[in-house]
Amino acid sequence: MITSTANAQVKELVKLMKKSRARDEARLFLIEGPRMAGELVSDPDWCTKIQKIYLSESYAVKNEGERESLENTAAVEILSDPVFAHVSGTKTPQGILAVVKRRTYNMSDILGDDPGRTHVLVLDNLQDPGNLGTIFRTAEAAGVTGIILSRDCVDIYNPKVVRSTMGAVLRMPFLCVDDLPGTIGELKAAGIKVYAAHLKGKRAYDQEDYKTGCAFLIGNEGNGLRDEVAECADHFVLIPMQGKAESLNAAVAASVLMFEVSRQRRN
Amino acid sequence: MITSTANAQVKELVKLMKKSRARDEARLFLIEGPRMAGELVSDPDWCTKIQKIYLSESYAVKNEGERESLENTAAVEILSDPVFAHVSGTKTPQGILAVVKRRTYNMSDILGDDPGRTHVLVLDNLQDPGNLGTIFRTAEAAGVTGIILSRDCVDIYNPKVVRSTMGAVLRMPFLCVDDLPGTIGELKAAGIKVYAAHLKGKRAYDQEDYKTGCAFLIGNEGNGLRDEVAECADHFVLIPMQGKAESLNAAVAASVLMFEVSRQRRN
Repeated sequence: MITSTANAQVKELVKLMKKSRARDEARLFLIEGPRMAGELVSDPDWCTKIQKIYLSESYAVKNEGERESLENTAAVEILSDPVFAHVSGTKTPQGILAVVKRRTYNMSDILGDDPGRTHVLVLDNLQDPGNLGTIFRTAEAAGVTGIILSRDCVDIYNPKVVRSTMGAVLRMPFLCVDDLPGTIGELKAAGIKVYAAHLKGKRAYDQEDYKTGCAFLIGNEGNGLRDEVAECADHFVLIPMQGKAESLNAAVAASVLMFEVSRQRRN
Repeated sequence: MITSTANAQVKELVKLMKKSRARDEARLFLIEGPRMAGELVSDPDWCTKIQKIYLSESYAVKNEGERESLENTAAVEILSDPVFAHVSGTKTPQGILAVVKRRTYNMSDILGDDPGRTHVLVLDNLQDPGNLGTIFRTAEAAGVTGIILSRDCVDIYNPKVVRSTMGAVLRMPFLCVDDLPGTIGELKAAGIKVYAAHLKGKRAYDQEDYKTGCAFLIGNEGNGLRDEVAECADHFVLIPMQGKAESLNAAVAASVLMFEVSRQRRN
């Protein structure tokens, strides 16, 4: 059992928790909590990606059986409760944390198997961790096939983002790209209709037909879509708003659009 | 100019910022930032409710003209920049803060003028400040006529909630009630159809007709609706979900429902 915060592994964990650069360089990320850990262990695609699992002392004592089965799957290390709390990204640590190698996806994962069901979100410079996590969580529920992020979005592997995806980060294919307009060009070349949610839109979002492959461009919380990204859209669509509201939260706007696609494809 | 955090007004402001009980007892709330302050001052219904406006020294110096016009509307006090920062609820204080008397709404405000357009949200024990703020912001845009909150929801006057409503808290009628089932009974007696978003729902939410007065019951983030509240609904509706997603964020679920009403009433 590791009992000192000066331990090299502990220092490394703290770096991985706090620094997106350290995570990027090591090509790793962290997941916390029994729920997402359980999903990692039981998914053959993720199981082999687990580098190490850390348990707090009290979690290990309380879950003796689980500890043994985890040890059959991955390297397991015990941290004293204070050291675990020092490492954890949450105020009330749940006692289990995994260091996980990243998966890489390609464009065909994003598009999915059925071209008629392709449903892509393209996120341009999204900055709020809660919004990004909520978008991943909602996207899965709405049948999105994949998400494309501009490189300057908030880090999808930020522990707060990972947590608020409620596990969807493990299941939703995504790509972080340097050249968003170029990537949107690839979508169009693949026959995907590209819509920008934009205040300049003339048609309401529900006046379009989303029964074939489609993609939505979602902009930054404060500034909306960058011009060079918005320009790539085939159509601008508007979410009609009443009252004096000037805009919607980015995750809400994305959710309304995604569930309209889902609604049309069900009906 | 007040230059000490020991000043009695400053202490009172800190209490109003931090303690929901202090706000409740004084029947006051705080709003921060030039945008919402401007809206208060220019709205005849709110203008008379402003108890006092506090400016940071540097804001007052930079906005001499605004300061003079504010002084014609309300009592204005200047705080040194460090004292303003001490009082402010934000990391980067915007230099203007108003202490405002609460407005009270009644059931007829919630129902609105046109019975066919009545669109009510009923929130049962919602706990996340960001969710509540986002729901108010989205509700205004979706044409909701009023919001009913159970008394044990997170405080609508919590400064974080107020901020994330983006001003909608000033424009959206709402009621906090002790007896949620009783209040839902009043809605039904007024001819409003009451829907519960519930995992037990059999029909998809978009299979209902929302062209007459309707209300939606939205439950707590972790636990959903309490049984005694869910029981009050005329119909349970389901938001169909794909993938392994087990639930939606409460603000997202509410948004999807609200914009379906808005969509049906436009078409």
